[in-house]
Amino acid sequence: MDRWFSERGPGMGQEFKITAELCNLDTEFQHIQIFETATHGKLLALDGIIQLTEADEFAYHEMLVHSPLMLHPAPENILIIGGGDGGAVREAARHKYIKNIYWCEIDPVVVDCCEKFLPVLSASNKDPRVKLTIGDGAKFVKEHKSEFDVIIVDSTDPGGAAEPLFGKEFYHDCHAALRTGGIISAQGESPFLLPEVVKSLWNIAGSAFANRIYSFFHVPTYPTGGIGACIASDAPVTQPVRRPDAELQQQLRYYTPEVHKACTVMPLFVQQLLEGGS
Amino acid sequence: MDRWFSERGPGMGQEFKITAELCNLDTEFQHIQIFETATHGKLLALDGIIQLTEADEFAYHEMLVHSPLMLHPAPENILIIGGGDGGAVREAARHKYIKNIYWCEIDPVVVDCCEKFLPVLSASNKDPRVKLTIGDGAKFVKEHKSEFDVIIVDSTDPGGAAEPLFGKEFYHDCHAALRTGGIISAQGESPFLLPEVVKSLWNIAGSAFANRIYSFFHVPTYPTGGIGACIASDAPVTQPVRRPDAELQQQLRYYTPEVHKACTVMPLFVQQLLEGGS
Repeated sequence: MDRWFSERGPGMGQEFKITAELCNLDTEFQHIQIFETATHGKLLALDGIIQLTEADEFAYHEMLVHSPLMLHPAPENILIIGGGDGGAVREAARHKYIKNIYWCEIDPVVVDCCEKFLPVLSASNKDPRVKLTIGDGAKFVKEHKSEFDVIIVDSTDPGGAAEPLFGKEFYHDCHAALRTGGIISAQGESPFLLPEVVKSLWNIAGSAFANRIYSFFHVPTYPTGGIGACIASDAPVTQPVRRPDAELQQQLRYYTPEVHKACTVMPLFVQQLLEGGS
Repeated sequence: MDRWFSERGPGMGQEFKITAELCNLDTEFQHIQIFETATHGKLLALDGIIQLTEADEFAYHEMLVHSPLMLHPAPENILIIGGGDGGAVREAARHKYIKNIYWCEIDPVVVDCCEKFLPVLSASNKDPRVKLTIGDGAKFVKEHKSEFDVIIVDSTDPGGAAEPLFGKEFYHDCHAALRTGGIISAQGESPFLLPEVVKSLWNIAGSAFANRIYSFFHVPTYPTGGIGACIASDAPVTQPVRRPDAELQQQLRYYTPEVHKACTVMPLFVQQLLEGGS
């Protein structure tokens, strides 16, 4: 009989046909599952929530990472919080001029399992510029001042270990951890699924930074088939200040500066959500 | 025990929690189901394929209909093919200056069931400008020459009754049925799910019309959470030539002229799909 992995929300679910189970274990923080699917390559789930499939993780990781990097004129020191699968690190490492990719992930078992079973994701974990710290991202940020040009928050959903990453204190700590003109880009959920989380994140980003944009793009694997990034800075964030060079652009499948800009134009109901009173 | 309605593709599925079954019958053409869902309002499925939920049908119908109408300087006579639920008719009827909304739907039972169970969709079916013909859309188009300013093709997926609507002959017949500067806007599938259908439609549209755009937008209810419209004309289609007036704009939740333009900027892999050789 067919086996399907299903992630069910209160009234809607996504399901994928499974051909093999590669990993299924409990860590200190969460339950990790990695499956081989029939049509979407490998699938990673944490606590039953789909984090990625190999079929479309490029869309999420490219938009989350290249958007802030192309908004910054010359990013040298990058901090990635979360993203235990390595996908955000891989995208950042494509930028040759970046000097240091600091990476703080709370769960070492996720990193290990993804290195073993998702090598396409963890391809750049061993890049000499990558400095991995196993620990709490919110705590890590608090201990650094004026150090980073870009902070990328590749978190799971609110609740559990990621909860502090959706809070006001964290955003103010990120502001202090960024150098002048620094930019934060955070996994921003789906306005179709969690409008109240999107709105809260948007308000919090606005309380800590002078400028912010919300970027909304297609990632079929996630519930509602789309997810956003909340991007904020004291510098302008309305449009990319650089284009990927030819070598970088050739490695991409979703991001272009034109797509970057187009994804910041919100469907009317999202625009009204963001502009409306809290 | 919970009841879920599931639409499964070869390796991925979408499922919705059902609280009531309102309609479940076979017509001459297809199997109709209408359910009340726990979180997405009512759901219409034809042959087991989700056609809409009340939660996000606005996104699909607004983008499919208002995009071509805002590309035309003064549309008076509109033809809608398919769209038995009435959603496309409802959106077209919001435009006061439209004189005639010709509507050709193959299955009268779909129209009847939606009038009974989905009144939000069929709200404008009785508008005096609406002229419903029960029949084959491909045949209807062949019998009309230089009559319409805009043709909207709100079809099911290829295969079954909708098959001819994805063919070359139909597009050339639509070209002949349109007045000078006329525009066609057709349900264009998802490039994540059916890239070969998107590409075929794109090529066929290009064989019949001088200009074409593909518009890709978020509709969580459809597999991959996104669907496109293929829009073509001998007139330019790069950007809207008008804005909705204040009264119309106030009725919308997804479409704005800025969203219209942004949705035509394709993720890189879609751009490459469309630009690549057939």
